[in-house]
Order: sequence, then structure tokens, then C-alpha cells
Amino acid sequence: MTLALDSAAQDLLFREAHTAHAFADEPVTDEQLRAVYDLVKYGPTAFNQSPLRITLVRSPEARERLVRQLSEGNRAKTAAAPLTAILSVDLDFHERLPELLPHAPGLKDRFFSELPVREAAGGFNAAIQIGYFIVGIRAAGLAAGPMTGFDAEGIDKEFFGDGRQKVLAVVNIGRPCEESYRPRSPRLAYEDVVTTV
Amino acid sequence: MTLALDSAAQDLLFREAHTAHAFADEPVTDEQLRAVYDLVKYGPTAFNQSPLRITLVRSPEARERLVRQLSEGNRAKTAAAPLTAILSVDLDFHERLPELLPHAPGLKDRFFSELPVREAAGGFNAAIQIGYFIVGIRAAGLAAGPMTGFDAEGIDKEFFGDGRQKVLAVVNIGRPCEESYRPRSPRLAYEDVVTTV
Repeated sequence: MTLALDSAAQDLLFREAHTAHAFADEPVTDEQLRAVYDLVKYGPTAFNQSPLRITLVRSPEARERLVRQLSEGNRAKTAAAPLTAILSVDLDFHERLPELLPHAPGLKDRFFSELPVREAAGGFNAAIQIGYFIVGIRAAGLAAGPMTGFDAEGIDKEFFGDGRQKVLAVVNIGRPCEESYRPRSPRLAYEDVVTTV
Repeated sequence: MTLALDSAAQDLLFREAHTAHAFADEPVTDEQLRAVYDLVKYGPTAFNQSPLRITLVRSPEARERLVRQLSEGNRAKTAAAPLTAILSVDLDFHERLPELLPHAPGLKDRFFSELPVREAAGGFNAAIQIGYFIVGIRAAGLAAGPMTGFDAEGIDKEFFGDGRQKVLAVVNIGRPCEESYRPRSPRLAYEDVVTTV
């Protein structure tokens, strides 16, 4: 046993978890989402900048507006998913830095006064948080169906009209069922990914 | 219990895990890294593109070259860490797509023939994989000290001379010790991060 994590947890989070394309007919509650967030919020980001924002698409009207912006192959499964979340970066994440990093109050202006810097750092760190969030959805016994096939400008316009947030991914969330999964695609070998110098 | 993941695993991966700034004097083995990779390789990426690459800096000469490229505050702790890994994106990740996504052989050329597209998609998906990797280090009972304070061009020149890879983060890895952790910084409240529409 080289890993400290027990094998049931390994299976739940990685080995038996798959991207889901269909879900059981069972709602995903706000309580479940809160439990996911209250776990994955502890995952680290650079300077604790925590730029990821999550928009839960619950109303039929909002779901319709979202589905219209998805690529063809993502529409039906998203229309049918128990819950869909828009994952975005808050480009004004730096406004919260004085609270998030109380021991370095000057950081907000020293590093993050320029929008392009915030786009790069915020996008990168929010993507790392998407990794944590997908793990967290699985930690709740749910399955995630993350997607990047959509019209990003269209989603930004529909849901983030003030220009402050930018969509990074859309993820369907629900209890897995027999039809959820496709066969697992191959992964790269350790030797293809890891080099020693 | 809203989460399916047991509380010991929650603690190991998120609640009691912290970014580490010092480590026990104990080596991190290739076997441990292999176990981490063999777990987190299952984390999903768009089109299974799997663009993250990991360079283990083991020789004193390579460590010296790396430390010189780090910002001042990251140097001493990296020089003293049991192991340091450079996390990078392979900008030619698309070359492996025919193996990684055997049911969609045309994707490599249809979507990824242009370098700027690969930089954006590869950087985003590799960052998501960094999230999985940090979780995986913790799953091995180790602690991670991820950093973004470095001269990226300098690291790319020193370690990726052919221009095919770009550094995204550098992470110290080791067994945690009493001096590893600083007090946890605050996190954003659920209400600050999650919106319902």
C-alpha cells in the first residue's frame, strides 16, 4: 500500500469514477453542493486568490438559455441533467485578496492591478479549482459531466453581462446510473508523463 | 453525512491538508510518485487530452539550476525539499490524441492544428490536472508546496530547450513535519462563490 488514501476512496474519486453523460432521475440539492464546496474550498490556490465562481442553473428558463449556447452534442444531456453548473473565473478576484490573505495587504495592488495579469492568474488558478471541484462532486457520491464545448462569448453575454466573469467550463451533476458511463479511454503511461533530471 | 467520502479521507485530502513550506528529512521515492500518477491519471480532461507533464528534479545540478529561477522567497525551501517537481504543459499533446481518443481519430487535426489553440486548451486542462495531482500527493500521505513565483521563461529555457513544454507550476513534495504548515488563510463563504439562476 503505497497510498495513504483507502482503496474505497481511491475508487470513489478516481479509479471507478468516470465522466457522466446521463444521470439517475434524482435531484441534486443545495445542501449537497454546499457540502462539496465546504470540502474543496480548502484546496490551495496561488496567494489564496480563490477565483473560481459557480453558477447553479436551476430555473427552466436559465437552463434553456444555457443549452442554446452549447455545442450540438452537449445539448440533450444537459437539458436532461438533474443540475448543471457554470464554472467561471471572477476577473475581479483581487478585490477579495485583503480578506483572503490578511498578512499581505499590499498584494492586491502590487500584483493584480492589471486586467491581463488577472485573466492569466485567475484563469489558471480557477482551472486548478475545477480539478478540486470535480473531485468534490465525486466525494459527494455524485458524478460529474464536465464540458468545454460551448460558445463562451454567448454564455458570458447571457449570464455575466457585466463582463466581470468568464465561463471556463460547464458541468452536469447528478447521481450516476447504469447509462452514465462510456468505456474508459486509455491513459498515458507513467514513462510518457514523468521525466527525471 | 452529506458526503460519501469518509471523514478520514476528507481530512487527508482537504480539511487537514495544507500547503507545506518545510518537510521531514525523508526521501520521496519514484514508487510513491508512480502510485500518485497511477491514481490521478484517471481524472478527466477535455477530449482526454492529458497535457500535463511532470519533471522530477532529483540531481543536485538540476536542483541548482531550478532554484536560480525561483523568486527569492521560494529558494531556500526548495533547495531543502526532499523532492521538487516542475509541472508543465506539453504543447504537442495533440500528437498523442489518436491513442488517447481512439474513437475520434480526426480530432487532432480538426481542432488542434494551431499552436495558440493548443496553448489555451493545453494550459487549461493541464491546470485542472494540477488540481488532481495536488490531491494525489496528499493521497500518498505526502504534503505539497505548489509555487508560481518563478521566472517562467528562465525555467523553460533551462529545462525545455526545444520549446515544446511550458512550465505552469513548481511543487515541493515531502512528508509533512511539525514545521510544515502556516496557519490556514480564510476561505470565501459559499454565498460569495455560488449563485443560483
